[in-house]
Amino acid sequence: MKRYEDLSPSQRCIMTPGPVEVDPRVLRAMSFPVLGQFDPEFTSIMNETMEMLRELFATSNSWAYPIDGTSRSGIEAVMVSLILPGERVLIPIFGRFGHLLHEIAERCGAEVFVLEKPWGSVFEPDEVIAAMETFKPHVVAMVHGETSTGRVQPLAEIGRACRRMDTLFIVDAVATIGGIPVETDAWMLDAVVGGTQKCLSIPSGMAPITYNDRAEAKLMTRKRVERGIRASDVQPGDLSFVRSNYFDLGMLQDYWSPQRLNHHTEMTSMLYALREGLRLTLEEGLDARFARHILHEKALVAGLTAMGLELYGDPSCKLTVVTCVLIPEGIDGEAVRSLLLGRFGIEIASSFGPLKGRIWRIGTMGFSCRENNVLRLLGALEAALQRHGFKGPCGFGVQAALDVYEAKVR
Amino acid sequence: MKRYEDLSPSQRCIMTPGPVEVDPRVLRAMSFPVLGQFDPEFTSIMNETMEMLRELFATSNSWAYPIDGTSRSGIEAVMVSLILPGERVLIPIFGRFGHLLHEIAERCGAEVFVLEKPWGSVFEPDEVIAAMETFKPHVVAMVHGETSTGRVQPLAEIGRACRRMDTLFIVDAVATIGGIPVETDAWMLDAVVGGTQKCLSIPSGMAPITYNDRAEAKLMTRKRVERGIRASDVQPGDLSFVRSNYFDLGMLQDYWSPQRLNHHTEMTSMLYALREGLRLTLEEGLDARFARHILHEKALVAGLTAMGLELYGDPSCKLTVVTCVLIPEGIDGEAVRSLLLGRFGIEIASSFGPLKGRIWRIGTMGFSCRENNVLRLLGALEAALQRHGFKGPCGFGVQAALDVYEAKVR
Repeated sequence: MKRYEDLSPSQRCIMTPGPVEVDPRVLRAMSFPVLGQFDPEFTSIMNETMEMLRELFATSNSWAYPIDGTSRSGIEAVMVSLILPGERVLIPIFGRFGHLLHEIAERCGAEVFVLEKPWGSVFEPDEVIAAMETFKPHVVAMVHGETSTGRVQPLAEIGRACRRMDTLFIVDAVATIGGIPVETDAWMLDAVVGGTQKCLSIPSGMAPITYNDRAEAKLMTRKRVERGIRASDVQPGDLSFVRSNYFDLGMLQDYWSPQRLNHHTEMTSMLYALREGLRLTLEEGLDARFARHILHEKALVAGLTAMGLELYGDPSCKLTVVTCVLIPEGIDGEAVRSLLLGRFGIEIASSFGPLKGRIWRIGTMGFSCRENNVLRLLGALEAALQRHGFKGPCGFGVQAALDVYEAKVR
Repeated sequence: MKRYEDLSPSQRCIMTPGPVEVDPRVLRAMSFPVLGQFDPEFTSIMNETMEMLRELFATSNSWAYPIDGTSRSGIEAVMVSLILPGERVLIPIFGRFGHLLHEIAERCGAEVFVLEKPWGSVFEPDEVIAAMETFKPHVVAMVHGETSTGRVQPLAEIGRACRRMDTLFIVDAVATIGGIPVETDAWMLDAVVGGTQKCLSIPSGMAPITYNDRAEAKLMTRKRVERGIRASDVQPGDLSFVRSNYFDLGMLQDYWSPQRLNHHTEMTSMLYALREGLRLTLEEGLDARFARHILHEKALVAGLTAMGLELYGDPSCKLTVVTCVLIPEGIDGEAVRSLLLGRFGIEIASSFGPLKGRIWRIGTMGFSCRENNVLRLLGALEAALQRHGFKGPCGFGVQAALDVYEAKVR
């Protein structure tokens, strides 16, 4: 019999746009013994988590709970539940994850209308609103923070327009939730999907979502109770049902309601992690947390610039929590990344599609977003660049970041 | 600001058909720091996990990996990927989870043919084979161990018939994997779904699956690469694509292959748990593990019978790992369960549909399946029954179980 070694993952400094490092208190929470899914102690943890999620999403929505899967499971759950086959869906795309929304909408059987913006920029709200007037979509689905390009899309005006035109507005806030403001109610977002493994610094495995009464009303038109636990039979001609059982929000909300109608077996340990991560986030305070992300971004950007590196993309819509850096001429980006990971234990990200080989993406998210990580990365990146023949100025990167931190203390 | 308490779940004795108690070594594994999803250390953990899963499923299939979700996510992934809309699917149902297969097949757009067996029994293979001859299904989907009734369905003959008739055979082995034999190759199962939170004693959150070349060949006819990362455009008329992005096995296997084509962000901590749980399972040895489950079932059944309780269902197809007990006349089953949980910290399960209020379901699964748990439960159950006016013999239950254990030692 083959013997497998004890698990012993290395301690990494993870400066990617996710998954990022996890606070040891969150890791510890997962090591607590499990409870049964209908144990009153467990259902009260479920209820508390919903309460914390409402605060996180800045909403008074009734419904705020996690989907049991990775971030894209949350996106798929919201889309497959809120988009009927044949409905018109408008998707303004400004990076890789907009294409994912397109992909999922198409699989939902929607008639998809796409707007595309060159990577590195975002939409003027008016461009989106004009397209809404043309295509009269039932749903608009959009990414808030694009990690592929490091850009952030303003949403409030589009939200207002959607409300006015009675269009549902679905937002992918996977990369932004807990790192920059996501104002569900104020911006009139009808359904929002967050991610755990980015600014919340919880391991990948759950996707917190929230949706309002408008979204719920649409769910109710497609509602059905599962075979094997439902009382009466379904009308045979009714084809409006959601094409997924696992992602049917109408059933999931019954499971998250006091009714506790049996559906899946909630992921106990992941829910412990989510609750603990939310607790730490709310304890820090959302505003303080957003300010922390801004501070470390500032130090990082100062350091990179002082090293002679150039940032990618339109600075007016830069996403605080992801910094995209042009790989200098003549430097092999992947060789630098390998050296950073292999020798220094530091991970930064490569990129997708048209940006492949052109930029690195550096995350400053959640628990990874801290002074010693930023300083460590800048020092190591400079050394790795030199090692690969980069002829930039030497020794300035870390100093520039220290200047930012010391100015802040003063 | 509201302050949330430290997480501190009680230590329960969980004797349900899942989720069950988790070995502290598995809990500890989840507290290790996370790695990036493309970190070579992490991808080698992914590969090792695949290797262990092949051993668990008793298969030489190339594909054996977890779906990132709870058990039913694995079922849905296999069904939505292997069933084309309009295909004929035969589902022999002998309990609640057969209805779930029906539900999911229907949502996949299949033409579903159902056979139903009274709860408490299972099918003669010939009954299923005769129905296959009548309905000529593309796919047969069936539960191996029904936790709702505590029955196990023999599969080998049906597997042979499916192979002969060129029908795909999908099996839900969520409740049985790691607790009783599941012989993927020998029984000619084309796709099998396991569960983590039952006999493997890993927290709910992943669904290990395996499928063979026959299944893969069908996936290949529907294959498509995701928008945003694919090179060329898809044929506009092609409607065979899988209706889910998250559950598209064709894409998932590219992510689990050396190609590592980007899809979701693998659940780091859950994968640590899965790897550790599999390691412990294989270290114990599958045969020794199955024997352990038989021993504790024997002790439990001896104890329950000696207490004057009656078992539910056809004994010839009893599932080792779930024991269904008739609630004695005049006893309020839920009151007994509440007393057990509230005072003794022991959880047993209620039941579904036609069995609601008629039986309790007691699990002896994975880490929960051990001598001190069985003895503790028997003692507490007797006390709880007495407390509620049950007039059975007194003091015999624990003694009968001890007899079994001591005979085993001798």
